[in-house]
Amino acid sequence: MLSSIFGQTVRGMRDFLPEDARRLRFIERIARETAELYGYDEVITPTIEYYNLLAAKIGEENRKRMYVFEDLGGRKVALRPEFTASIARLVATKLRSAPKPLRLFSVGSLYRYDEPQFGRYREFWQANFELFGSALPEADAEIISLMDVFLKKIGLDGYSFKIGHVGVLRGVFSDEGIDEDKQNSIMQRLDKKEWEEAIKLLKESGSSRKCLNTLKGLLKTSGKDPPCIIKKMREIVKEYPGAIEAVENLNEIIDLLRSGGVETEILIEAGFARGLEYYTGAIFEVYVPEMDIALGGGGRYDKLVELFGGGKIPGVGVAMGMDRLSLALKKHGSTIHISAPTKLLVVPVERSLLGEAFKTASMLRESGFCVEIETMGRSVSRALSDADRRGIAFTVIIGPREIKEGKVVLRHMAERKQITVDLSELPEKISQVCQC
Amino acid sequence: MLSSIFGQTVRGMRDFLPEDARRLRFIERIARETAELYGYDEVITPTIEYYNLLAAKIGEENRKRMYVFEDLGGRKVALRPEFTASIARLVATKLRSAPKPLRLFSVGSLYRYDEPQFGRYREFWQANFELFGSALPEADAEIISLMDVFLKKIGLDGYSFKIGHVGVLRGVFSDEGIDEDKQNSIMQRLDKKEWEEAIKLLKESGSSRKCLNTLKGLLKTSGKDPPCIIKKMREIVKEYPGAIEAVENLNEIIDLLRSGGVETEILIEAGFARGLEYYTGAIFEVYVPEMDIALGGGGRYDKLVELFGGGKIPGVGVAMGMDRLSLALKKHGSTIHISAPTKLLVVPVERSLLGEAFKTASMLRESGFCVEIETMGRSVSRALSDADRRGIAFTVIIGPREIKEGKVVLRHMAERKQITVDLSELPEKISQVCQC
Repeated sequence: MLSSIFGQTVRGMRDFLPEDARRLRFIERIARETAELYGYDEVITPTIEYYNLLAAKIGEENRKRMYVFEDLGGRKVALRPEFTASIARLVATKLRSAPKPLRLFSVGSLYRYDEPQFGRYREFWQANFELFGSALPEADAEIISLMDVFLKKIGLDGYSFKIGHVGVLRGVFSDEGIDEDKQNSIMQRLDKKEWEEAIKLLKESGSSRKCLNTLKGLLKTSGKDPPCIIKKMREIVKEYPGAIEAVENLNEIIDLLRSGGVETEILIEAGFARGLEYYTGAIFEVYVPEMDIALGGGGRYDKLVELFGGGKIPGVGVAMGMDRLSLALKKHGSTIHISAPTKLLVVPVERSLLGEAFKTASMLRESGFCVEIETMGRSVSRALSDADRRGIAFTVIIGPREIKEGKVVLRHMAERKQITVDLSELPEKISQVCQC
Repeated sequence: MLSSIFGQTVRGMRDFLPEDARRLRFIERIARETAELYGYDEVITPTIEYYNLLAAKIGEENRKRMYVFEDLGGRKVALRPEFTASIARLVATKLRSAPKPLRLFSVGSLYRYDEPQFGRYREFWQANFELFGSALPEADAEIISLMDVFLKKIGLDGYSFKIGHVGVLRGVFSDEGIDEDKQNSIMQRLDKKEWEEAIKLLKESGSSRKCLNTLKGLLKTSGKDPPCIIKKMREIVKEYPGAIEAVENLNEIIDLLRSGGVETEILIEAGFARGLEYYTGAIFEVYVPEMDIALGGGGRYDKLVELFGGGKIPGVGVAMGMDRLSLALKKHGSTIHISAPTKLLVVPVERSLLGEAFKTASMLRESGFCVEIETMGRSVSRALSDADRRGIAFTVIIGPREIKEGKVVLRHMAERKQITVDLSELPEKISQVCQC
């Protein structure tokens, strides 16, 4: 034994033991199935990308938390902190001439050097859905509707959506002539709910009293009755044409969600901002009452593909936090059954019968059973008591006399009963007594 | 557009477009199914681990190619170049008191700064199976048999196994009193087929003429008739008790594979070595004739868990190279059908019917159909010609008159025929004419 460091994971990193791994892979499987049902094709991009690509529009807070290093060839690279930059790069290059709309799905692990806390890890997992090519509200509505169906399919309930639109605030700021860098700084403060700081920054930019009042008014405007909130927003921004357009766009998206059958509770927040800098339109997040972190979020980004050299291709997407969804399912006790499969164990009475044990196990696996073989060289009685302890449903005992006659002993562990069965009838016999 | 670097992946990294992603995920799915059939539970370990853990027994060549960096907390960490060190860490710690044998499966991406070439990337994918707790040959045979079933299930044929045993050479060296560091250096040369170098190193260690001749004899001993090769090996190492034991162990494993029903061609190579330093027993690789790189490989490592502070827990495992398997399937034209699902498209005649289009699409997805919605605001005729180009099988057209009567128009794209259908009968009608 060399050093105690051998026993540890690095701070912020995690091991998923079988139960947690099963839950994560279940969420991944449902995400992939949902993607397929909505016509989203999976793509896989690298974990390591050029720093410049990943940092371009990630926002100042996230940028500081990236895992950045030089590879052995002296390239400044980073571990991806999110998927959208990579997917937008793909759309700007290899998929540039693919017919639009492009619907793309990705899933995997991402890296941010955040302070570890409940639901926040330095290596985390997301399922990501992006729709490129349409700037129309139906594209935003499709992404939100897909998120809704995905959450239902994994068995989560009691969740609600928070929806906003960065075009409202940015519309006001742009109409006031505030430059993009300044806008970004203000939006970053708003994302962190540092409203006083945001107002201070706006004051420093020399903006008008009207602008300050508009910001203050928007920050106070939120609620769960979308038509009512939209009406208030229209009133507040009525002197800013850029912002009015954004409010109407938000209204159309929500109308379409409702007429399209999405009944999930929607909280509209007029002052809602997200840390990622690339958003240009509607933004949204999912919450459950018991957790104060978003389970997923996304929004519209119409200028990212162009920034990456790919022409004017609008985009909208959402990333679902698989770790947080897993925690939410664990907390709520999902209605969906995520359990280990029923296992059988094949035990040879003596080691000279191991070949027969292997063949019997193969035959059972071909019938779809999950089968272990005794590989510890234990006696039948020790193997059986171990099987009992581990909750094995059935054991198949290979004895020298029985196997000569093409037979084995099938033992029902819980009932402590056993019968001698023809090998050819074994799968059928097991199916008769087992729901595996 | 900022800089041309935005369009590039970092050297050695790859994008998987949908067809390639589908093939990789198919291989992953079959690996997970095979794991389940054999009773292997999935675990997920971090991509980032302490450098010391990953470097401990990886071998000098691989160590130089690791992605190593300091995280923002000043920890010397690395991206995992293989799974086994992490899994052994888990067994030495969190799973230390779990009942043995422990069967563990993992899948994911790994990182080595190798020179990119056909089938070799700096980010690559493996499916990994490990069995802990048994030092008996049935454990080795189970791993090889599992690998065999997995390869059959993905539809690969014409593959063969190369099998050796590091205990044979190490047995000779140990009986000669050559220390472990020197042994490791010699094994590294053998892994790279630098036989002259290996012999030179052995000479330098001051070993006997008998030892040199034994090494030379073993290096010449290989072939596809296992009993015959085993016999030759016995003869060559007859004066080295440690090596004889290893030859008998190899013989038992191969006997058990044959009596257990594994019929795949086996090439025995007495001088076979692998780059990873932790092997102590049988080692194996898979090849297809058309590719000169191993598609997967593994072996027995009985001292790794102990090195990591976890007591004397033997282990044996195999890692399947998913990228290389994907290339092999692509090259050979697998017998397995990996294709995109049949898609439907729902098109509203006017945008005011988008809500109805969303509801119709939802209903069809609930029946299991893969459904896109027209989100580009195109006219029906433009949407249809685009659907034609993209190979969409059916379109469902939502018209104002029809929808009032609870009906839609179902169009068979290839046959250019359309009928008006009751919404309630739509899934059934599509099923009747479609094999999707």
